Amino acid sequence: MSERDTAIDPADVERVRVLATAARDAARRLALLSRAEKDAALHVLADALVAATDDVVAANALDLARGREQGMGDGLLDRLRLDPPRVAAVAQALRDVAALPDPVGEVVRGSTLANGLQIRQVRVPMGVVGMIYEARPNVTVDAAGLGLKSGNAVVLRGGSAAADTNRALVTVLRQALADAGLPEGAVGLLEGGHGAVRALMTARGLVDLLIPRGGADLIEAVVTGSTVPVIETGVGNCHVYVDAAADLDRALAITVNAKTHRPSVCNAAESLLVHAAVAEEFLPKALAALSGEGVVLHTDALATRSAEAAGVPHDLATDEHFATEFHALEMSVGVVDDLDAALAHIRRFGSGHTEAIVTEDRAAARRFTAEVDAAAVMVNASTRFTDGGEFGFGAEIGISTQKLHARGPMALPELTTTKWVVEGDGQVRA
Amino acid sequence: MSERDTAIDPADVERVRVLATAARDAARRLALLSRAEKDAALHVLADALVAATDDVVAANALDLARGREQGMGDGLLDRLRLDPPRVAAVAQALRDVAALPDPVGEVVRGSTLANGLQIRQVRVPMGVVGMIYEARPNVTVDAAGLGLKSGNAVVLRGGSAAADTNRALVTVLRQALADAGLPEGAVGLLEGGHGAVRALMTARGLVDLLIPRGGADLIEAVVTGSTVPVIETGVGNCHVYVDAAADLDRALAITVNAKTHRPSVCNAAESLLVHAAVAEEFLPKALAALSGEGVVLHTDALATRSAEAAGVPHDLATDEHFATEFHALEMSVGVVDDLDAALAHIRRFGSGHTEAIVTEDRAAARRFTAEVDAAAVMVNASTRFTDGGEFGFGAEIGISTQKLHARGPMALPELTTTKWVVEGDGQVRA
Repeated sequence: MSERDTAIDPADVERVRVLATAARDAARRLALLSRAEKDAALHVLADALVAATDDVVAANALDLARGREQGMGDGLLDRLRLDPPRVAAVAQALRDVAALPDPVGEVVRGSTLANGLQIRQVRVPMGVVGMIYEARPNVTVDAAGLGLKSGNAVVLRGGSAAADTNRALVTVLRQALADAGLPEGAVGLLEGGHGAVRALMTARGLVDLLIPRGGADLIEAVVTGSTVPVIETGVGNCHVYVDAAADLDRALAITVNAKTHRPSVCNAAESLLVHAAVAEEFLPKALAALSGEGVVLHTDALATRSAEAAGVPHDLATDEHFATEFHALEMSVGVVDDLDAALAHIRRFGSGHTEAIVTEDRAAARRFTAEVDAAAVMVNASTRFTDGGEFGFGAEIGISTQKLHARGPMALPELTTTKWVVEGDGQVRA
Repeated sequence: MSERDTAIDPADVERVRVLATAARDAARRLALLSRAEKDAALHVLADALVAATDDVVAANALDLARGREQGMGDGLLDRLRLDPPRVAAVAQALRDVAALPDPVGEVVRGSTLANGLQIRQVRVPMGVVGMIYEARPNVTVDAAGLGLKSGNAVVLRGGSAAADTNRALVTVLRQALADAGLPEGAVGLLEGGHGAVRALMTARGLVDLLIPRGGADLIEAVVTGSTVPVIETGVGNCHVYVDAAADLDRALAITVNAKTHRPSVCNAAESLLVHAAVAEEFLPKALAALSGEGVVLHTDALATRSAEAAGVPHDLATDEHFATEFHALEMSVGVVDDLDAALAHIRRFGSGHTEAIVTEDRAAARRFTAEVDAAAVMVNASTRFTDGGEFGFGAEIGISTQKLHARGPMALPELTTTKWVVEGDGQVRA
């Protein structure tokens, strides 16, 4: 609630009002475009980005230099970097979005009522979508592209570390929109300090949806500080539970993949739970394999025995460890008496993102998928599969960890709402 | 933001925590019930209400007496009243909900991925749904019934005017749940003052969804004061636009029905817009008919001529009038030059609930349905049809006027979220 309790500078409120009003006007145009018109515009944007590669790379160099001065780590610097191949990749992503089906106009359901009224629920754009995100400048282009394809105008608020890059990218995109005969207001960049962000979060009636992407602190601040509708994304304390009836070779491969394939992302596993009946057989192998991949291990009392048997480095797992999303080569490991204990542990420590069970027992799999309350529940598969690309959506604007509107990977349909169209020949209520 | 800036009494926070935790535990049970078990329980609740008619009516008498002392108007007293026939009707509503299909378990979409993973998106209950509403005690029973059918536990916060009635109703419902072998925590009643409401609105992680039902002030306070997800409902400044190509007999019937059939509700029309080409022919008849039904008329300069021609009482419409939801036999009336002017007026004054056009011109109908941004757009039909019952949903928990999650009439499916279930045979990310 902190964000909202502090007064907001009227200049920031006005800056947001101007941006959002231009976006609203643009959105009215975008909502009426055919798929062909939107796809053609996306190719114009892609070509413009490639043509402007030098300007974008030069602007990015300023951000990189500032980052180095401020002692930004190599990992963050790499996420911030845009070299010519990456600019080409970002442009290609726009062409890929053009190739996706248009969600707008889809008839979700409909019927003819007893009185002859024909009703249908049709997908329409949200209108104005705000994005608040951190360092990666490709999000700026992805959001603009997904917004355009779904008929939405976007108001973008990127991280200050990428300020010069984002300004250059948005300048190119807005000019390209104008060249394509579309309103520049379809893509707006919100500059200014935290006050500007607070003004965006409280722009009721001007912004239809706000999507935060970034670390837990950013997301918490946006979710609790906003009075406009928000979709909470991407916080994941994911578990792999190895059941008594697990195929232990599969369990080993899934555990190592879920933890080490890409540790920094939200669908990576942070915690391993093993049924007591297979702990002594499975854990020494699993802990040795994880340790061999450089994973720091926090083991509970029973798992510690296996760590010692395997002779791998470890320390004693605390509740703190089990509650932590390491987003690194680090994992908490526990032994549970049975499926009920595993479900109770996941209820207590899970974040509702992705939970996996490894088992050959149908009953255990059915209970796990029915009782775990999460956006995605995996049976005999890595947690890493919770991803818009892997699910075949062709794009991803984020992974929702809330229950309202969208849950799990969000792509184009999740950027739309619906409208009821009712056609009659003079019907009135009796 | 006012609601949230004031401190909340820890006793209220604790009261909400206890209620919501009991609801959470109950929701875990409800989520696993079969349709047959839920339907049987709904009949137990209905029978228990009928059996407890005398207790409920006696408790309601206390509320009615208090209301009269406090000078409550006849209209509100009537909405508050529960006599034996109304108790029977409320019980029957529970049996009607039992007859509706169960939304839980529906497979929304699914596919088999190239790697053999079988993914499906399945409807599951939200979990804990909070309701904040005003005088009508039937909402207490409706919300409990719709919650149970959709596998959700509910935390109910009714108006203080109905405090004794709601306490009696919830006591009966909780005992009936216990008799049916279900957790009493599935239906909780939040008592206490405004502090208790603020505690409910900020119970993040305890409440999955909050639905306010009532006047604009209540809804605004809940939407801006909540940090838990909210669905905004039921604010409606609805227009009937009579196009140049309208069938004027249909236009007259639709206008009178939309305004006078039930003026107090959100899908009643508040404003009439008429194309200049048909104003002189249509308006005198329409204004005479409306005035004959007792409608107070606020006419713009051009409509005033017709009012005078018809010799009906009227005053000059101001922007204030056009912006007002009268929810009474009162209407603003304007003449517009063309469809564009009508669309611009609706953009300016509409609330995004329901807008109607009367026309025989396909092009005008297509533009109106495409360009009006509202939950429901009617062609040649009364605005009064935006209703869960009329749409064939069999029930209604409210009418969403926001774009996130649900838009328009909300019934059982809108009280659910989804979960991705992914089944494999050892797949890992390459």
